[in-house]
Amino acid sequence: MRCEIIGVGTELLMGQIINTNARDVSGELFAVGVGVYYQSVVGDNRERLKEVFERALERADLVILTGGLGPTNDDITRDTVAEVLGLSQQKDAEWEKRLEEFFRRLGRPMAESNRRQALVPEGGILLSNERGTAPGIYLEKNGRTIVLLPGPPRELLPMLRDHVIPRLKVKLQDRGELAVFKSKALRVIELGESAMTEMIKPLLEAQKNPTIAPLAKSSEVHLRITARAATTEEAEALLSAEAEKIKKVLGDYIYGEDEEELELVVARLLWERKKTVALAESCSGGLLCHRLTNVPGSSSYLLGGFVTYSNEAKAGILGVKKELLESKGAVSAEVASMMAAGARKLCGADIGVGITGIAGPGGETPEKPLGLTFIGLSVPALDYTRRYEFWGGRLEIKERASQTALHLMRLYLLGKLR
Amino acid sequence: MRCEIIGVGTELLMGQIINTNARDVSGELFAVGVGVYYQSVVGDNRERLKEVFERALERADLVILTGGLGPTNDDITRDTVAEVLGLSQQKDAEWEKRLEEFFRRLGRPMAESNRRQALVPEGGILLSNERGTAPGIYLEKNGRTIVLLPGPPRELLPMLRDHVIPRLKVKLQDRGELAVFKSKALRVIELGESAMTEMIKPLLEAQKNPTIAPLAKSSEVHLRITARAATTEEAEALLSAEAEKIKKVLGDYIYGEDEEELELVVARLLWERKKTVALAESCSGGLLCHRLTNVPGSSSYLLGGFVTYSNEAKAGILGVKKELLESKGAVSAEVASMMAAGARKLCGADIGVGITGIAGPGGETPEKPLGLTFIGLSVPALDYTRRYEFWGGRLEIKERASQTALHLMRLYLLGKLR
Repeated sequence: MRCEIIGVGTELLMGQIINTNARDVSGELFAVGVGVYYQSVVGDNRERLKEVFERALERADLVILTGGLGPTNDDITRDTVAEVLGLSQQKDAEWEKRLEEFFRRLGRPMAESNRRQALVPEGGILLSNERGTAPGIYLEKNGRTIVLLPGPPRELLPMLRDHVIPRLKVKLQDRGELAVFKSKALRVIELGESAMTEMIKPLLEAQKNPTIAPLAKSSEVHLRITARAATTEEAEALLSAEAEKIKKVLGDYIYGEDEEELELVVARLLWERKKTVALAESCSGGLLCHRLTNVPGSSSYLLGGFVTYSNEAKAGILGVKKELLESKGAVSAEVASMMAAGARKLCGADIGVGITGIAGPGGETPEKPLGLTFIGLSVPALDYTRRYEFWGGRLEIKERASQTALHLMRLYLLGKLR
Repeated sequence: MRCEIIGVGTELLMGQIINTNARDVSGELFAVGVGVYYQSVVGDNRERLKEVFERALERADLVILTGGLGPTNDDITRDTVAEVLGLSQQKDAEWEKRLEEFFRRLGRPMAESNRRQALVPEGGILLSNERGTAPGIYLEKNGRTIVLLPGPPRELLPMLRDHVIPRLKVKLQDRGELAVFKSKALRVIELGESAMTEMIKPLLEAQKNPTIAPLAKSSEVHLRITARAATTEEAEALLSAEAEKIKKVLGDYIYGEDEEELELVVARLLWERKKTVALAESCSGGLLCHRLTNVPGSSSYLLGGFVTYSNEAKAGILGVKKELLESKGAVSAEVASMMAAGARKLCGADIGVGITGIAGPGGETPEKPLGLTFIGLSVPALDYTRRYEFWGGRLEIKERASQTALHLMRLYLLGKLR
């Protein structure tokens, strides 16, 4: 089934908002085997929408229009579609009641223009909108399927998933075109994109179904595996098999899948191994703490966090020796190590983490470049420190420092930190 | 000048990426007075791109194509455009050298396919790309202007701004169509969208040029003012006059403009008034510290931060009285106040901030609902505490708690906190 998506709205053409609907609708359609061949955007202009819609009817079996279903005169989608298809419109009595009820609850009078939102072109099916006043419409005419959905993503997405995709699946099934696409992302740490690509080169070269696509993120790489099959089970089996092959090669470089952020993986390990942690941050400025506390339940393993920017705070709060701060400087392996040990002792935690570095702008010297960062890990038997040079602006350096600290915590918890 | 933007790339049609280029190009064009009438997206398919491009030439004076300029066989934009326009292509010797140099530095052999990226359709101008191997192309043919730009936003945007917009400005000037659009956002805190709209209703109703548009963000509201004029000076004068009118009504509810985040405004106030601060966070988990340390130079006023989740840490590190933790509970006005005072004393700061609340999931009781948060401010003469009930998920509650703490700090520094 060939699909075209038409976004309606002058705000899109003025660059005020991003057309996330095109991406979301395309993604949902792709997952059931509908091919999107064109995406178009046109303003709130009846003549131009007519032209674009007519063209879409020529080249697609399924036309999905998003936006332009509001109550004002600018909202022209439904009327234009009805006009092009030569359909009259009737009010849906039930939806009109819903609108009246909606305005009564708001305590506001309902304008006559709002009643227009209950209109449905003849033969069309009204699609209920649980989060707004504009219903969707599903129409079949001359072998074409036409779907109208409201523009706000929080209204559009549930309607697409609940009312449109199930109808399309039935259609695809009848045509023998129903396919299941499933995808999974493997999250890779420590390896850069090219080093990773090199390692899995034979798999990349042999790929067919599933496909494998690497995607570089700011401090990790994702590998997206996508499988196509006739059933969900088959697609998932294909995915698992491919993921296993990749895992065999990349091993611990893969830390998680899909939405599993690194902080979640570390939190889970802390939880499973019943370990507690205390953090001392200088250049990362609390970001490591913020990330770990984004995970629900973090209070059970995160005993405390310290943001010690100044030498006074490093010495006064964490007990870093003043001589050391003077002789080695605040950005040094020794200070990172003492920060970690200080935090650990203060909180009575199993693991202490210390981060000190130069996030800039400014502060660098010829010996200590911008981005230079030391990360220390203090545990009962051992102290580790690692030296890094992170690149990027202040926020990126903070991001990379926190990411790398989480990575070291993970390796330690897995017994893999040497 | 009528413009159509064509995005080329199957990944867009599969919903794998969002077409931010359409938004960004539209926004830049809007700012100089070019009207974008259509945005289209088509896959890496020569026939369909041909069809879409031909249609665009019929209905637009300016056609901008983004993407499909890479070295592989999938990259069809340049060849298809040359074919439709009936133009032969020549290699640009200088760009070919750049490519050779680029690959020599990488230490990788240059594939023959890479040389194709030096091809330019006859009569076209090569637009230099400082961040990638695909140059842009600027062409005029049969009264139409055609621009090709590479897909990656970090390559496209500087090329658009440095090479395309200046050329278009000259063209618009010649046609007497050059307009200047300038816009400014006023950042409003404490007031919700509807309360704010109510206050500036007369201004909203009278708006024409400039226009005024409210936009609700997660913990603040932005008012975007947009002015159109013949010159930058005129547009800026219009903007300032409108902003002044709004400021007269909203006063201190406006905390900043455009990209001025609340943490930046607070940092500036701390700096100007030579005040130092120490933070004690429970439910916000380090986010307040993270936000304040995102501002360069934060080491001069942020003396220290503590994330004290557990009662042990609140008592042991910040010196919150155990009796208080037991009688009032960790989420109480008294504890917020003592956290603030404890942090202030520990660091010898002028201002201490304490945040304690229930970010969830879980932890709420009938008396202490999810989102209940106390924020304390400790300063030499006085202690303030405020009670809030924030709504939303864990991350939103963290966000709102940190935002509100910054807001209280700002009011205090302005001498407006009562």
